[in-house]
Amino acid sequence: MLNAWHQPVPPFMTRKKQRLQITLWLQGDDLPERAFLRVEPDNEEWLLIMKAQPEEGLWRYQASLPLDEGEAVRRYCFKLLWADRQQWFGPEGWSLTPPGQLAQFAVDEPDTTPSWVADQIFYQIFPDRFASSGGEHGIKTGSYRHHAAGCDVVRSEWQQPLVDKFAASTFYGGDLEGICQKLPYLQQLGITALYLNPIFTSPSVHKYDTEDYYQVDPYLGGNPALLRLRAMTSNIGVKLVLDGVFNHIGDSHPWFDRYQQGKEGACHNTDSPYRGWFNFYPDGNVLSWKGNSTLPKLNFAEPQVVQAIYQAQDSVVRHWLRPPYSIDGWRLDVVHMLGENGGAEANLHHVGGIYQAIKQENPDAYVLGEHFGDARRWLHAGVEDAAMNYMGFALPVRAFLAGVDVAYHPIQLDAAACAQWMESYRAGLSHNCQLIQFNQLDSHDTARFLTLLDNNPRRMQMAAVWLLSWIGVPCLYYGDEIGLDGGNDPFCRKPFPWDENQWDQPLLALFSRLIALRKQSKALRRGACQVLYAQGETLVFVRCYQQERVLIALQRSDAGDVMLPYNPLLLKGQWQQLEGEGELSALGTGLQLKLAAESANIWRLPG
Amino acid sequence: MLNAWHQPVPPFMTRKKQRLQITLWLQGDDLPERAFLRVEPDNEEWLLIMKAQPEEGLWRYQASLPLDEGEAVRRYCFKLLWADRQQWFGPEGWSLTPPGQLAQFAVDEPDTTPSWVADQIFYQIFPDRFASSGGEHGIKTGSYRHHAAGCDVVRSEWQQPLVDKFAASTFYGGDLEGICQKLPYLQQLGITALYLNPIFTSPSVHKYDTEDYYQVDPYLGGNPALLRLRAMTSNIGVKLVLDGVFNHIGDSHPWFDRYQQGKEGACHNTDSPYRGWFNFYPDGNVLSWKGNSTLPKLNFAEPQVVQAIYQAQDSVVRHWLRPPYSIDGWRLDVVHMLGENGGAEANLHHVGGIYQAIKQENPDAYVLGEHFGDARRWLHAGVEDAAMNYMGFALPVRAFLAGVDVAYHPIQLDAAACAQWMESYRAGLSHNCQLIQFNQLDSHDTARFLTLLDNNPRRMQMAAVWLLSWIGVPCLYYGDEIGLDGGNDPFCRKPFPWDENQWDQPLLALFSRLIALRKQSKALRRGACQVLYAQGETLVFVRCYQQERVLIALQRSDAGDVMLPYNPLLLKGQWQQLEGEGELSALGTGLQLKLAAESANIWRLPG
Repeated sequence: MLNAWHQPVPPFMTRKKQRLQITLWLQGDDLPERAFLRVEPDNEEWLLIMKAQPEEGLWRYQASLPLDEGEAVRRYCFKLLWADRQQWFGPEGWSLTPPGQLAQFAVDEPDTTPSWVADQIFYQIFPDRFASSGGEHGIKTGSYRHHAAGCDVVRSEWQQPLVDKFAASTFYGGDLEGICQKLPYLQQLGITALYLNPIFTSPSVHKYDTEDYYQVDPYLGGNPALLRLRAMTSNIGVKLVLDGVFNHIGDSHPWFDRYQQGKEGACHNTDSPYRGWFNFYPDGNVLSWKGNSTLPKLNFAEPQVVQAIYQAQDSVVRHWLRPPYSIDGWRLDVVHMLGENGGAEANLHHVGGIYQAIKQENPDAYVLGEHFGDARRWLHAGVEDAAMNYMGFALPVRAFLAGVDVAYHPIQLDAAACAQWMESYRAGLSHNCQLIQFNQLDSHDTARFLTLLDNNPRRMQMAAVWLLSWIGVPCLYYGDEIGLDGGNDPFCRKPFPWDENQWDQPLLALFSRLIALRKQSKALRRGACQVLYAQGETLVFVRCYQQERVLIALQRSDAGDVMLPYNPLLLKGQWQQLEGEGELSALGTGLQLKLAAESANIWRLPG
Repeated sequence: MLNAWHQPVPPFMTRKKQRLQITLWLQGDDLPERAFLRVEPDNEEWLLIMKAQPEEGLWRYQASLPLDEGEAVRRYCFKLLWADRQQWFGPEGWSLTPPGQLAQFAVDEPDTTPSWVADQIFYQIFPDRFASSGGEHGIKTGSYRHHAAGCDVVRSEWQQPLVDKFAASTFYGGDLEGICQKLPYLQQLGITALYLNPIFTSPSVHKYDTEDYYQVDPYLGGNPALLRLRAMTSNIGVKLVLDGVFNHIGDSHPWFDRYQQGKEGACHNTDSPYRGWFNFYPDGNVLSWKGNSTLPKLNFAEPQVVQAIYQAQDSVVRHWLRPPYSIDGWRLDVVHMLGENGGAEANLHHVGGIYQAIKQENPDAYVLGEHFGDARRWLHAGVEDAAMNYMGFALPVRAFLAGVDVAYHPIQLDAAACAQWMESYRAGLSHNCQLIQFNQLDSHDTARFLTLLDNNPRRMQMAAVWLLSWIGVPCLYYGDEIGLDGGNDPFCRKPFPWDENQWDQPLLALFSRLIALRKQSKALRRGACQVLYAQGETLVFVRCYQQERVLIALQRSDAGDVMLPYNPLLLKGQWQQLEGEGELSALGTGLQLKLAAESANIWRLPG
């Protein structure tokens, strides 16, 4: 029996001038005759001999990797050799054969990621529904026409219940000034960064049907309101990320102009200068997003589309990154779908172009892609910094706690299967990249997590602990923190109930404590993440950085007893209990946990 | 218990006009309530309902995938749904959670790969050692200077044993005319395509130290000899792939000119127009391939390097693809290492540039990358058609049969671990891409497989059967077929012994039969490949296309009894025994195999 531990963070990996010193801990009777650090600075395998020395009943193996050549992503794993066999150790544990290139430990040296992201607490706001300033500019019944339904849009009262019919044209009047007014609330909660759903002029509530990429919707307060929000957020150090919808536009955009406001739109005019910006079927209908004809898909095979969206000096992508708006990043809507000729042809090329344009304007901007599915092809290609981490976080957590999948179909996962999903997904993403993946429980595109849980408050608390303690940057979807519920769109977009009597105060207090803890804890923000136990109903993981440790234990149902043998990721010391009613006690050199059903527990060694 | 079968070939996948009809077979008591074909034509998940109907005790589920939109690589898997759970089926079998994007069934529709490759039998020739015409132009002692050793190169007699010292400057005088003369031998063996190690002017035996990219080495016969070889191979329909060495040049190339033949070389001249074509350390030494200073690394950050190698109209890459040479493809030496500024920076960009240049000259040319490690990043990026398939074929076969790994370290794999390696490696590569991966047992860069086997003839026969029957295009390294042995470089580069008394005639006969079989068998050339049994010492797999089946059983040691239950990939019928002494008999609806120790067996249903 041989045990091994390593994580790509200090003290297991330390930078010493132009070298990375890498430590592997081994424990067991059957130590290898030789151990190698396997690296590939030039994409060829190098085997660096590791030196062993005993320490406190374990063996410390070390080697150092020169940084003076090679690509910034340093991939490595460990090869152990006996007289007649070998074994490999990587982020997914032991294997008999070498881990794939994209399933190794990895770290960025130098770090070219926007590393400020890892320190944030994001908050996602759907602007029509978060807060209304009640200003004169606010939207009214008839402010826009709901062409598809042949009627005007409607302004509803804040308290009025949502209905399914005409949901995308029923406004509640939230606006950017409303967000400004609620900044103190957000600050008190501990929020440090905002991600806003689309805000540019467009006739729908959701504003994914852009009519003008250069104007904030007048009913949200127009460009001046964004300037004010930017100024206020900058003053208090709050970051601002906007939603970039570049796969398609709205059919009322002058480039397309279905409703013939102008003369040049492509919809009705085969001679339109914009005709090539779209793709039309032989019957004259336009190729659109998921067949929704109000959202004509842009054709990136047309050089002018490339210019307009990301290439030209005042392209949309660049415009808002520049002063005075100076946004801190773009969330890119359905980024895997955009491309040439009506489909996703040359997708990576154009997403790469958007990425480069963004980084040219601000190398530290955050490029966040929306992907419900596997985002690793984009992450490994280096065309985005992070993905909305449905696949690596939201969906496994949903499956484990709520028993449903992305399509709301039933799924049964025990902790082992859940951990395997999460671990194998992130294996091979560099540690720096993992730290800035965008973790959410839910969003404007999903049912509220609380509703998926049938309003089970204990499981919601487990989810909150998981969100704030797992590797990646956490984002709260507005209202989750006060127990706002709701099914799928439109019901996940309820107006925020500002009447505090309607709030789940214990949940809010929990979110506040977790956010405060995360701000204090480098292990939670920047540390490694190692699953220590995953079986049946119980998932235990540790976050670590230097000498700090945060231990998180999630018990889904039943009560559980877990024995954790001593290991170098756990350390010895006085563990402080921060959340939960579980018990932690020393047992021999290890730890014993007693966990209540449906509980989330946090202990910490401050380091 | 639920069993499932599918392969991305007819009859399990059939093209019907603009749709692909896809069939999944299920067998068991606990059938799902619903089954979906999960596709992602626009990179978003679609779930297409599959219709079920019973057939001969199984259930046939079908759905059809529209081809009128989406990227050419069609990825899909199957989602099965019960009232309270779900299960997924992909190329690696069952899973509780969705397979990753790059671990699904995949097929190219339309097929943009050079599909002619799948029908070839390749033969790799190291030109100095295959055959000598004895012509006047042949190399002599002193024809080149071996600068590093301070002596002249040496011409050795064909029969003289190899020695380690000065191996790269000890010539045996093989030449292109020698290859021409041996074409009848190769044709009789069944070879249809040649891959030649480098042939351009350079002072070493191996010629990876190019001195002139536009001249075939005069001692190999110069450009006229290549023209003659091209004409002769074209006449008999034999394809020709050359070795492209673009990561580095030789230090005697005029661009570098260490030995000061000219005036403009970069080595001694900081004002040289070629200075920026290389990277120099502060001490004036050049960055070179693996520290070997005679092989200065080209710097692709220099636009003129890009022009010279692949971009310009008469760039090296393009030149040899054009008439009169019209080579059929390039094997790209250490292709993962080339890049900018002394390392592999921007590697995918430049490999992509080389790929595009090649395809512009000949869309059907074969772009084959050399990778000892994981090649999937390059294959998935679409910057090469195929890799020298060390990782997906040569290394697992070597591990299983010879017990050593890429570094000749001991490795212990049973058939299950070996199959898992091979299966997980190819999962997610499109079927079309799998068909043209370049499978070899060994090469000029490895010990001979026979030597790794301690000259065990039975295991060599097993290896031969595996090579000619596994998915991918087989390539024999010259002499393997007659039992040539030899350790690592230089001993794997022995002159071909043309005295037939030295040949292993049974091995040669086996290779000839296997090659002939492959030519007759579409299942072997184009069919799916499914492992049916992999445990302990026994590996059984089937190749299938339409109604044809080829069943291959490899038994490493001990004797083995294998029971194969009936399944739609096996079919019923009169199996013909083509190789081996094993026994195949019907047992119930399934098959029973009795296999001798160290045996390779082939049975066939001609279909």
